Amino acid sequence: LQLPTKATHQQTREFNVRLALRTLYDSGPISRAEISRRTRLTRTTVSDVIAGLVADGLVEEVGRGPSSGGKAPILLRVVPDARQVIGLDLGEEAFTGALVDLRGEVRHEVSLPVGGRDGDDALALVDVLVERLLALADRPLLGIGVGTPGVIDAVTGVIRWAVNLDWQDLPLGRVLEERFGLPVQVVNDSRAAAVAVHTFGLAGARVSNLVAIKVGRGIGAGIVLGGELVHGDGFGAGEIGHLVVADSGERCRCGRSGCLETVASAGAIVRSARRGNGTGREWRTAQRLGLDEVLRDFQRGERRARTAVLAAGRYLGAAIAAIIGVMDIHRVVLHGSVTAFGDPWLDAVRDATGARALGLLTSGVRIDVVNERANLAVLGASAMLMTNQLGLSLAR
Amino acid sequence: LQLPTKATHQQTREFNVRLALRTLYDSGPISRAEISRRTRLTRTTVSDVIAGLVADGLVEEVGRGPSSGGKAPILLRVVPDARQVIGLDLGEEAFTGALVDLRGEVRHEVSLPVGGRDGDDALALVDVLVERLLALADRPLLGIGVGTPGVIDAVTGVIRWAVNLDWQDLPLGRVLEERFGLPVQVVNDSRAAAVAVHTFGLAGARVSNLVAIKVGRGIGAGIVLGGELVHGDGFGAGEIGHLVVADSGERCRCGRSGCLETVASAGAIVRSARRGNGTGREWRTAQRLGLDEVLRDFQRGERRARTAVLAAGRYLGAAIAAIIGVMDIHRVVLHGSVTAFGDPWLDAVRDATGARALGLLTSGVRIDVVNERANLAVLGASAMLMTNQLGLSLAR
Repeated sequence: LQLPTKATHQQTREFNVRLALRTLYDSGPISRAEISRRTRLTRTTVSDVIAGLVADGLVEEVGRGPSSGGKAPILLRVVPDARQVIGLDLGEEAFTGALVDLRGEVRHEVSLPVGGRDGDDALALVDVLVERLLALADRPLLGIGVGTPGVIDAVTGVIRWAVNLDWQDLPLGRVLEERFGLPVQVVNDSRAAAVAVHTFGLAGARVSNLVAIKVGRGIGAGIVLGGELVHGDGFGAGEIGHLVVADSGERCRCGRSGCLETVASAGAIVRSARRGNGTGREWRTAQRLGLDEVLRDFQRGERRARTAVLAAGRYLGAAIAAIIGVMDIHRVVLHGSVTAFGDPWLDAVRDATGARALGLLTSGVRIDVVNERANLAVLGASAMLMTNQLGLSLAR
Repeated sequence: LQLPTKATHQQTREFNVRLALRTLYDSGPISRAEISRRTRLTRTTVSDVIAGLVADGLVEEVGRGPSSGGKAPILLRVVPDARQVIGLDLGEEAFTGALVDLRGEVRHEVSLPVGGRDGDDALALVDVLVERLLALADRPLLGIGVGTPGVIDAVTGVIRWAVNLDWQDLPLGRVLEERFGLPVQVVNDSRAAAVAVHTFGLAGARVSNLVAIKVGRGIGAGIVLGGELVHGDGFGAGEIGHLVVADSGERCRCGRSGCLETVASAGAIVRSARRGNGTGREWRTAQRLGLDEVLRDFQRGERRARTAVLAAGRYLGAAIAAIIGVMDIHRVVLHGSVTAFGDPWLDAVRDATGARALGLLTSGVRIDVVNERANLAVLGASAMLMTNQLGLSLAR
């Protein structure tokens, strides 16, 4: 929690409200006395703050806990569906949106095909999606969280560069705030996914240090350290798709070669399995069409598909070994379309990580696939919005 | 600042003292009113806390600041030499110790050759070193900070594994605390160096995100993110010496091949320049004898020395590109014996980093050598001890 540099009475109160709410969110159901002990706020302040939260419908009493001698204390918890957030994922194929509650439950989901739209047309499609979800909301709305590929300034909500949508220096946060009169949080989709895993404890990973890696058309990660999302100096932390892991190989869209994306992404697998060697638009079409086909071949045990998939897994493992070697994070969560290749692929990832990382560092490492039907970018962008509005977790 | 889970009056007071002291340390000279504004503590609490710190000799008044209408406010600062810390660096060749003041100024330095001692003999040498420094101290002592190679549990002060000293699961922190009756902080030497750079603003790097890389016999890094030292789940964050950066190459002491240490360390340079190919003890002797010789050859422009040094620089650059790619940290500081190769080596490092890292991420990156006569591990271990005792910075 950041201390404001100039504290007014109003700021102090808001600070206390957020502190109490986060404590309840993380540790509830607990009593007022327990909140006071954990937050260092006085009993009077806690009672006052909780009264306000109960009046707002955010907190409720849920019975009594065990007595420690005197009267059994009343337990409190955050009401899961006290508020809803509109979460969006501006993916390459489709713009997906949902109404998400405070515990990450998805109430309604809407998906609109992008159909090649970019620029203003893509922005208009975002409007349509938000309008649809606004009509479905049946709880007070906290705001809109947007996950999108590209380099995003998560503080100002400016999309610096989203190549597929042809957006450059687009102040998407401000645009949506003005249009819908709601608070907006814009964040890179891979970063968002890591926040979702952390905040909602997906794949059993409610831990303070984790890396969540999206392995799909592109490859990107989100890093949570000490319960906080790592942004980096230029909001590029986790941009691991362009880690150089192969000594030679195909030219990457970034201009260099040997990048992780060229050897471990969905496209890399399709090209390797098909021995296709087109570039540019062709290349992307091949990716789009090919993954399901390769998956069928792979499941039938077809040799080329198998070789391609396992090689991709090994390259990813090498990159994970580097990440672990640098930061000593024990919890790695994988998601994205390539995880469909299942255990044989995951074993290749794990073996390569173990072979390339220092023994002392890998002994406690867990690499898992998160099996969520819900869209992680939608959940994570929602989680960041909730955190900014209510202070629910440390991931900002 | 961590909030204690159960706050007593005493803890609240200590929390306030640390908060005020850190604010003064980072931003002083400033007035009591300014401290109150920045910390959210009331004017009464600040006056009370400052009175205690002045009585303890930790804080002093240093004249008056500009008036904003009324009476010009009295400015306060932390007294740099109010306290001393014994800082130790348990290096492979020598155990070095110093008395360090609160601003990282070294008052006295003592160095004792290790002469191949290990186990209990090495521990006895630590005692001798501390005794010598105790005799030289001319200010109240805060405690002992110890930087040492190996994997260290920085919370409990247990050395899990320090291969050169043959120490395994040695509770060095507790041993020294009992022997000298002073608080002790034990930390890996590369981690410590990063804390020194951050806390004392060495190489102009008083920034909240930085990586400090020691390039000597071994290669290790310390990572500071958001003003806090990153420990990792097993205190191994920054153990980059065993990042695999070469597809083949000599066998590393960790059992694998292609590790950064085998291609970019002092020993790698000596072996490559000399085409020596011994292993084990021989290998280490070669390293010890050879670096100065290679440096002379390099400065004379001898071809093999030049090739070896620049290749080592390029491998380091590749590792830095990976670190930047993962965390997007813009400030990289290099130290250790290999930095003696100067600008040609540094240029090779920078060029390789630029060539392998994504353009968007490297545009703001600065890679510098820190030119400090003082021992960074000594300074950093001291800084961590000060921070634990007084709360001077966020790097714990």
